[in-house]
Amino acid sequence: MLREAVARLAPPMDTVAAYHFGWIDAAGEPADGDGGKAVRPALAMLSAAAAGAPPETGIPGAVAVELVHNFSLLHDDLMDGDEQRRHRDTVWKVHGPAQAILVGDALFALANEVLLELGTVEAARAAARLTAATRKLIDGQAQDITFETRDRVTVAECLEMEGNKTGALLACAVSIGAVLGGADDRTAGALEAFGHHLGLAYQAVDDLLGIWGDPESTGKQTWSDLRQRKKSLPVAAALEAGGEAAKQLGELLATDAHLRVGSEVSGPGEQYGRLAAEHAAARETDPASDLMADFDEAEFALRASLIEQAGGREWTAQEARRQHQLALDALESVELPQEVRDQLAALAKFVIERRR
Amino acid sequence: MLREAVARLAPPMDTVAAYHFGWIDAAGEPADGDGGKAVRPALAMLSAAAAGAPPETGIPGAVAVELVHNFSLLHDDLMDGDEQRRHRDTVWKVHGPAQAILVGDALFALANEVLLELGTVEAARAAARLTAATRKLIDGQAQDITFETRDRVTVAECLEMEGNKTGALLACAVSIGAVLGGADDRTAGALEAFGHHLGLAYQAVDDLLGIWGDPESTGKQTWSDLRQRKKSLPVAAALEAGGEAAKQLGELLATDAHLRVGSEVSGPGEQYGRLAAEHAAARETDPASDLMADFDEAEFALRASLIEQAGGREWTAQEARRQHQLALDALESVELPQEVRDQLAALAKFVIERRR
Repeated sequence: MLREAVARLAPPMDTVAAYHFGWIDAAGEPADGDGGKAVRPALAMLSAAAAGAPPETGIPGAVAVELVHNFSLLHDDLMDGDEQRRHRDTVWKVHGPAQAILVGDALFALANEVLLELGTVEAARAAARLTAATRKLIDGQAQDITFETRDRVTVAECLEMEGNKTGALLACAVSIGAVLGGADDRTAGALEAFGHHLGLAYQAVDDLLGIWGDPESTGKQTWSDLRQRKKSLPVAAALEAGGEAAKQLGELLATDAHLRVGSEVSGPGEQYGRLAAEHAAARETDPASDLMADFDEAEFALRASLIEQAGGREWTAQEARRQHQLALDALESVELPQEVRDQLAALAKFVIERRR
Repeated sequence: MLREAVARLAPPMDTVAAYHFGWIDAAGEPADGDGGKAVRPALAMLSAAAAGAPPETGIPGAVAVELVHNFSLLHDDLMDGDEQRRHRDTVWKVHGPAQAILVGDALFALANEVLLELGTVEAARAAARLTAATRKLIDGQAQDITFETRDRVTVAECLEMEGNKTGALLACAVSIGAVLGGADDRTAGALEAFGHHLGLAYQAVDDLLGIWGDPESTGKQTWSDLRQRKKSLPVAAALEAGGEAAKQLGELLATDAHLRVGSEVSGPGEQYGRLAAEHAAARETDPASDLMADFDEAEFALRASLIEQAGGREWTAQEARRQHQLALDALESVELPQEVRDQLAALAKFVIERRR
């Protein structure tokens, strides 16, 4: 179903999208790439079953949510300058920034098309919810970008950003099938709450993997989030913990901030200038434009260990467990077929225990 | 209504959008900037009246269409490397490429929100049509980008691209109010046809202004489209006309193509590398990355005059008149309140005669 939807794209967008999803390689040859964890489509199908509807009722919702998720990956990888995703070069790196923007736009439009072409009242309600979730997703990315140019961010700000960037779409995924299946608001609301907390648990785990994850399994660089100066939960928690390590970390991050040329606004643009230039054929990357050029691995290792000493790593692991429990509590608050409940719980467990 | 919708955006996106619409200047001070011709909102309101509904029925459609139009301007200016729009620096130039991507995404999502929050069957139909039009808009931009890296494009390809890039959204604008007003398919279809032909007339005029327009009134650089190697109608028509001038022009454009480093795919990326780098603070633009760096004004003047000698200018003016007439014919094919018919015809006249 996802492939059928993507096949509607006009060339060369269909090829670029197929590369992004891992269906073909950079040369256009069929590939059995890692298309991601597909947690959201699985949730959308279960969501339909949760409403007592046949799982296939959730398919358009599953496809729409997966399309929106990948629209945001295409644009975020470009804005963040991420060069690798799922062990492969990102789309902007292979096909250029313009294609990353264009194909992202196309996937977003396609998501609405897949729902609205159903022409039912339920589909319109589902599309309205997906749109609301997408707006939050974009708010979250806006906050995330701003955070990178600040030398500190509170845990509260960080949780709000992650609730927008990750919680909203997971909440939509786990309720959209139910909405398409005609669920009442109480059921849809409980599923949404489950998804929201699951999203925060998911993101907390992501933040741990972003610093301490094994590049072999994550497919990202070591210290990936530190390289990008992401103010993720472990960093925010460490800074708020106080103590010597927190103080040292705060000073280091402040220095990073001063190392940077330009204002909050030109900040993302600079990194962008670097990555777009990198892509440009027959041009050498200008090292001066690489904010972290003068950093060696040891500097990242130091930051990581200071974050851990200040307790940022343990706090984030705790937060993941706490959000996981809140998600399970939300499930308990509503009547659901036992097997659906079990499968949702199993997915939540996977999210917490994943290493990638 | 548009301002209210945009005010829903979280900072800093609300500010960036306000700059784009010309409500504030780059410093954030209130400005009475040129917010564009607002042809589409006017059409959407008239469209409601065309269905015998009160014009305000068309407001959400007018806002949604204007949001989608501006989403595409934000992203296209970045992809095309346009530095000026409406006599002002474009958003990527002032606020950086990342904000141009992000705010474009937000305006697109907002467009769906404005329609779907109405929660009516008509609104869902309107949203479905807007989504279809947006997909064509994106197809058109994809074709436009590809054309820039080719040394020739047929008139047919060019018309198809312009039908997607300009015709589709105008067709949606002039029918969306009617759809919201519960118009029958025949009326909506006739209005859509009017909008489609009007869009092609509009684009033909745009292509003329893109080469021979007065920078004072267009707010674009001289030879703007030639600088970007756009294969617009005058160029395509000139190349197909044959004859000496066409031959010379073809050879010049072929040489341009060979001047360029990289493939079709890396093409946009390169220009992009240049523009993003330009934005990057504390960095000099790398002239080697400016594809047209070694061109002087005389070269553009030569191309423009060859296009005119080959008949590309006159053919395009003819095409504008032809599409204008087809638009008026579409209006005649359906019952409409006389004053609505008159106002639609007046708008069509304005589109043809505009100098900006």
